[in-house]
Amino acid sequence: MTESVAPSARRQATRDRLLEAATEVFVEEGLQGASVEAICSRAGFTRGAFYSNFDSKEELFLVLLEREFARQSAELQDTTDELAPILRGQSCAIGPEQAAEYIAQILAPKGDTTAWYVLETEFCLLAMRDREMSAGYAEFLSRSHAAIVGPVESALAAAGRRFTLPAEHALAILGGEYERAIKITALSGAAAPGGVDELARRISEVLFAITEPI
Amino acid sequence: MTESVAPSARRQATRDRLLEAATEVFVEEGLQGASVEAICSRAGFTRGAFYSNFDSKEELFLVLLEREFARQSAELQDTTDELAPILRGQSCAIGPEQAAEYIAQILAPKGDTTAWYVLETEFCLLAMRDREMSAGYAEFLSRSHAAIVGPVESALAAAGRRFTLPAEHALAILGGEYERAIKITALSGAAAPGGVDELARRISEVLFAITEPI
Repeated sequence: MTESVAPSARRQATRDRLLEAATEVFVEEGLQGASVEAICSRAGFTRGAFYSNFDSKEELFLVLLEREFARQSAELQDTTDELAPILRGQSCAIGPEQAAEYIAQILAPKGDTTAWYVLETEFCLLAMRDREMSAGYAEFLSRSHAAIVGPVESALAAAGRRFTLPAEHALAILGGEYERAIKITALSGAAAPGGVDELARRISEVLFAITEPI
Repeated sequence: MTESVAPSARRQATRDRLLEAATEVFVEEGLQGASVEAICSRAGFTRGAFYSNFDSKEELFLVLLEREFARQSAELQDTTDELAPILRGQSCAIGPEQAAEYIAQILAPKGDTTAWYVLETEFCLLAMRDREMSAGYAEFLSRSHAAIVGPVESALAAAGRRFTLPAEHALAILGGEYERAIKITALSGAAAPGGVDELARRISEVLFAITEPI
């Protein structure tokens, strides 16, 4: 048993260390500026270790993007699980202002969202010029909204509402609002005017337009 | 009179030729790949002529972006002006399916939308790392939705509907749908499945959710 498990665990540890080192180097140098050498040197590995785990730094980045998205989805699930009994306990129907307060709690920034957005934009640009990368990225984008339909619909149901549009379309609209806010923040170099509260108010506004009481 | 007008007209001609040459070079080489030398050489001018008109290729690009947006806004105005009497002439209220047909007419591709999207993404990435560029771009983005509120609200009014959200917010949502479709097209290297008709159907769907009969 030990014989066959050990190499796999060691391999996973190598992958994890490369992923962590790459995150640091990407944030510091950008996706284009980061070299495989710099990532290996930060992780304390050879180029051989890198290439036995990843085909390229772009493939590694897509793995990081998937991990970051999985982390955010799990967080969303936790937050909506906590909110659901509170929402169900409300004695009267929730209005847009109250919903905006809950949405602000869900959106409260965790980690460096702006740095991720800059890196993802860089990746998107590379992918638009590289057919091989774009296939994986397009597939990730189409999966990403589907993955958060569950927690969002549960929270809505707890608040006594449901989407009037197909859930995937509704999530794309809400995701678009979120992305636009991050873009403005990344461009202005500071939180957008009004910050999370303003974004939550806008999301609540459109949420009431595309949902109805159950 | 001739004395003072002639230099200005010549200056405008120089600017126009530089802008046209830059468009070609940007589409061929990308924003980062294009050099001021290549733009000057294509236009048949010296670097001196370039720098007496623009501070940098990035500043020139922002001028191109504004021109392209003004062209698209004028086209939108023309199309909605043509549609308005047809919409007003309808004997009964327009439904989502019929609206989608009109929206498909408005969205029918003109020019190389994908090439522009790739260039704008490249510009956005540069702007997120350069405070000077980002101010002008953020200002352009915030103006861009406001500029098309007029024609969109007129077309809606002709169809007997009005937004239930603030117009700027509603336009941001519709613009987000459009941008997402261009992004998927740019990534897939071909028109998205269903193309303009699918996009028009989605826009119509959300349009009915965020408008009401007058």
